[in-house]
Amino acid sequence: MLEQVKQDVLRANQRLPEEGLVTLTWGNVSGIDRASGLVVIKPSGVGYKELTIDDLPVLDLDGRQLEGTLNPSSDTATHLALYRAFPGIGGVVHTHSSWATCWAQAGRAIPPLGTTHADYFYGEIPCTRSMTDDEIANDYELETGNVIIETFTGRDPLEVPGVLVKEHAPFVWGTSVKNAFDNAIVLEEVAKLAMHSEQLRPGIQPMNQALLDKHYLRKHGKNAYYGQRT
Amino acid sequence: MLEQVKQDVLRANQRLPEEGLVTLTWGNVSGIDRASGLVVIKPSGVGYKELTIDDLPVLDLDGRQLEGTLNPSSDTATHLALYRAFPGIGGVVHTHSSWATCWAQAGRAIPPLGTTHADYFYGEIPCTRSMTDDEIANDYELETGNVIIETFTGRDPLEVPGVLVKEHAPFVWGTSVKNAFDNAIVLEEVAKLAMHSEQLRPGIQPMNQALLDKHYLRKHGKNAYYGQRT
Amino acid sequence: MLEQVKQDVLRANQRLPEEGLVTLTWGNVSGIDRASGLVVIKPSGVGYKELTIDDLPVLDLDGRQLEGTLNPSSDTATHLALYRAFPGIGGVVHTHSSWATCWAQAGRAIPPLGTTHADYFYGEIPCTRSMTDDEIANDYELETGNVIIETFTGRDPLEVPGVLVKEHAPFVWGTSVKNAFDNAIVLEEVAKLAMHSEQLRPGIQPMNQALLDKHYLRKHGKNAYYGQRT
Amino acid sequence: MLEQVKQDVLRANQRLPEEGLVTLTWGNVSGIDRASGLVVIKPSGVGYKELTIDDLPVLDLDGRQLEGTLNPSSDTATHLALYRAFPGIGGVVHTHSSWATCWAQAGRAIPPLGTTHADYFYGEIPCTRSMTDDEIANDYELETGNVIIETFTGRDPLEVPGVLVKEHAPFVWGTSVKNAFDNAIVLEEVAKLAMHSEQLRPGIQPMNQALLDKHYLRKHGKNAYYGQRT
Repeated sequence: MLEQVKQDVLRANQRLPEEGLVTLTWGNVSGIDRASGLVVIKPSGVGYKELTIDDLPVLDLDGRQLEGTLNPSSDTATHLALYRAFPGIGGVVHTHSSWATCWAQAGRAIPPLGTTHADYFYGEIPCTRSMTDDEIANDYELETGNVIIETFTGRDPLEVPGVLVKEHAPFVWGTSVKNAFDNAIVLEEVAKLAMHSEQLRPGIQPMNQALLDKHYLRKHGKNAYYGQRT
Repeated sequence: MLEQVKQDVLRANQRLPEEGLVTLTWGNVSGIDRASGLVVIKPSGVGYKELTIDDLPVLDLDGRQLEGTLNPSSDTATHLALYRAFPGIGGVVHTHSSWATCWAQAGRAIPPLGTTHADYFYGEIPCTRSMTDDEIANDYELETGNVIIETFTGRDPLEVPGVLVKEHAPFVWGTSVKNAFDNAIVLEEVAKLAMHSEQLRPGIQPMNQALLDKHYLRKHGKNAYYGQRT
Repeated sequence: MLEQVKQDVLRANQRLPEEGLVTLTWGNVSGIDRASGLVVIKPSGVGYKELTIDDLPVLDLDGRQLEGTLNPSSDTATHLALYRAFPGIGGVVHTHSSWATCWAQAGRAIPPLGTTHADYFYGEIPCTRSMTDDEIANDYELETGNVIIETFTGRDPLEVPGVLVKEHAPFVWGTSVKNAFDNAIVLEEVAKLAMHSEQLRPGIQPMNQALLDKHYLRKHGKNAYYGQRT
Repeated sequence: MLEQVKQDVLRANQRLPEEGLVTLTWGNVSGIDRASGLVVIKPSGVGYKELTIDDLPVLDLDGRQLEGTLNPSSDTATHLALYRAFPGIGGVVHTHSSWATCWAQAGRAIPPLGTTHADYFYGEIPCTRSMTDDEIANDYELETGNVIIETFTGRDPLEVPGVLVKEHAPFVWGTSVKNAFDNAIVLEEVAKLAMHSEQLRPGIQPMNQALLDKHYLRKHGKNAYYGQRT
C-alpha cells in the first residue's frame, strides 16, 4: 500500500514540470497511506528529474521521519496539518502555478464563472486571510496549514479541493494523489479563465447556481453519470 | 463510409490535446455518416491516448447505441440535436479551449474584427442565452442543443460554424469532421485575437463589412479562389 | 541563384509553424532573384509539412507563372507589388501572427518602446489606412500592396521593414528571405511587448530618440559594431 | 577553474533558448574566475546552437581580450562594470525575456507581491533612471553598467540580484553562473505574476514585510533551512 503511494507520489512530482505547473523546484506533492497513517513527500530542493523512489521521505502524521535520508519538503508541516484536519483526503499538491498564484498575490477568491470550474470545484475557491506576524515568525509552515483549515470552517474540503494562500500560492488536495494532481491542473486553468473572463466583462458575477449544481453533481456523488461506471 | 467516419473521429479526438484545445478529458468530437444516419462519438471520460477505434460508440440520431460497450460522451444529446437540426453538418467538436471559453463565461458574442475571423466565420460568433432552471434540471444536454439551435434561428449554421454556450464553452461544427476541427482551431485563435484587440482599442467596432464579405467569399461559395481547385 | 532562393523560400515557409508564427496555412513567404527578376512563393492552401521544392511556383514581376503547376498564394499580387515598389528587398513574409494581428485589428501603429524594437525597426511600425470598398472589390490583393506602398511614402522600407494591414495582419520584408523572416519574428515579439508595456503604463510614450538611434545604428549602417565583421 | 567557468558559461548560454528566455540571439551570459580575474562571455551575434567552448572570448576586467578570435558580446562593457563594482557576483545574465522587458519598457520597478518573489529577491526589483544623451552617445555599454551600479547605491546586489534597464531589458546576476541563471528564470516569472496580479487588483500594494523576510531568510543566510544542507 505504502509502495503504491510512493509510486504515485514519485510520478506526480515528475509530472509537475511536464504539465507546466512549476518553475525550478517550486512545487511538491505528497500522499498518505491512511491504513498506516504514513505520509510520503518530495524531499526539499531536489530536481524532479533526479528524483528516485528511494529519495522520498516517509513521515508519520506527527512529523517523525521514518524513512529516507533527505530532508522532506520545507512545506511538510503544511501538508501534515491538512492530512490531520481533512480525513477524506489522500494527496496534497503545492505549486506556484502562474495564474493561480496571481489570484493568491491579489488576495482574491476565484469565483465560479462557468462549468469548467463547476465540474471540479463546488463554489468559489477561497483565499486565506493574511497571516499575523506571530504566525509567520513561529511555526510558519504549520500555521500556513492552520490558516487553510480555518478558511474551510463550515465548508467541505472535498467539495472545494483547493485554496489560495494569500501572497503565496495554491495548495490543492483530493481523494488520492492522482485526484489531487488533476485538481491542481484544473485550478490553474480555472484561474486563467476567470481572470480573462473578468477582463471581457468587468464586474462579472458568479455563474447561475442551478448550472453550477448540475455540472458538479453530474460528475460527483451518487447520481453522477459522467465517465464509465462499473 | 462509417469506417471512414470512425477513422476521422478517432484522429480528431487524438488531435484535441496535440493542438492544445483540451485540458484533461474536456472535449469530444463526433462525426455522422449521413447515408445511414449513424453518429460516431468519443466515449465519456476516456483519455485521448488510450482511445482505439473499437472504443467509439455508434448511435442513431435518436440516441440508440448500436455499437460499442463504453458509454458515449455525456454531451452526446447535444451533438445529436445539432445533427438533427443542421442537415448540412458532418462533424461536431466540443472543447473548453481557453480563450473561447472566456468569451462564453463572459456571455459575449465574438465580434468580427479582422480577416482571420472573416476567412472562416461570416459574422459574429454568437453566445447562447442563459438556460432556465427547468432546462438545466430536465434533459440538460438535449436542452443545450436546443438553445444552440434557437440561437441560429434565421442564421445559416454553415456560414457561422460555431457558438459559445453561455457559462459553459464552445460547440463547433463543419461540413466534415476535419472541417469542424479546423473551425475549432480557428475559433480559439479568433477568440484570443478579439480579446486582445479590444484591450488595444477599448470600444472597438466590428470590421468593415466589405472586407468581411471579400475574405469570406474568396474562401467559400462558387466564386472562391483560395487554395487548389481541380 | 534562383535555386538558392527556392531553398530559402522552402525553408522559411517550413519554419513558419516551427516558430509559432502561423495557425493552419495562414502565412506565406516569398523571395526574389533580383538578377532575373523572378519571384518564388508558397502555393495556396498547401500545408507546410507537405511542401516540396518542386511545388513552389515561380513568377515574373508582372505575375506570369513560369514554373510550377500549383496556384501561387492568393496574396501573390501583394508580394509582387512590394517587390516592384521596394527595390532593396529580397524577401516578403506574410503571417497572421497573434500579437501583431491584434495591433492590425485595432488599427494602431506599434510605437517604439524599447531597444528590442529599436534594434530592428527604426521607429514606429505603421498601420495602413482602411481600404475603400472599390479597392476591396477590384484587384483586392494588388490594392493591399498599393495601400502598403502609400503608407511608406517618405519612409525607407528597409529602416522599418514591416507594416500592419488594417483589420488584416502583418506583411514583413527584408534584404533577403532570411532577413525578412527574422524581422517577422521580431515584429511578433515587439507587438507582444508593446501591448503589455502599455498595460503596465497606460498612456506610455515612445522611447528616448537618442536611445532608439543608438540601438538601430549599432546594428545597421556603416558604423554598426554588433556581431562578427570580416 | 577557468575551464569550469567556460563550461558553465557555455551551458548557460545554450539554456537561454531552451528555457524560453531569448528570441533570436538576444541574450548573453558571462562568468568570472575571481582567482585570476578573468571573464568568459558569449561572442556577439553567434547562434546558441552553433556555440562551442573554444568560441568563448576570455577577457580581463579591463576589457583586454586574452583568448578567442570572435568579438565578445556587444554588451561586454556592461558585464565588466558589474564584475568590478559587485565583488560578490560570479555570473551575469542579460536577456530580453518578455515579461521582464515589459516592466523595463514601462520604466517601472517590480514590487514584491508574494513569496515567489521573496524567495529570490529581497524587495522590489528596481528600474534604472533614463540615461542622458551623453551617456548614450559615449561609451554606451559602460554607462549602462554605471547606471545599474548607481541604482544599487545603498543596496546589496546579492539581496536583489537583478535590475531592469529602462527602455531596454533586464540584467541579472548571482553568486555563480548557475545561480545567476536561476535568478534570470525567476525574474521572468515574477514579472509575469506581478503584472497579472495588478490586473486582478489595480493599485495592489507590496506584500507583508514579515512574510517577505520569512521567505527570503528561509532560503538565504545562516538560518536558512530550505533544501539539503551538508
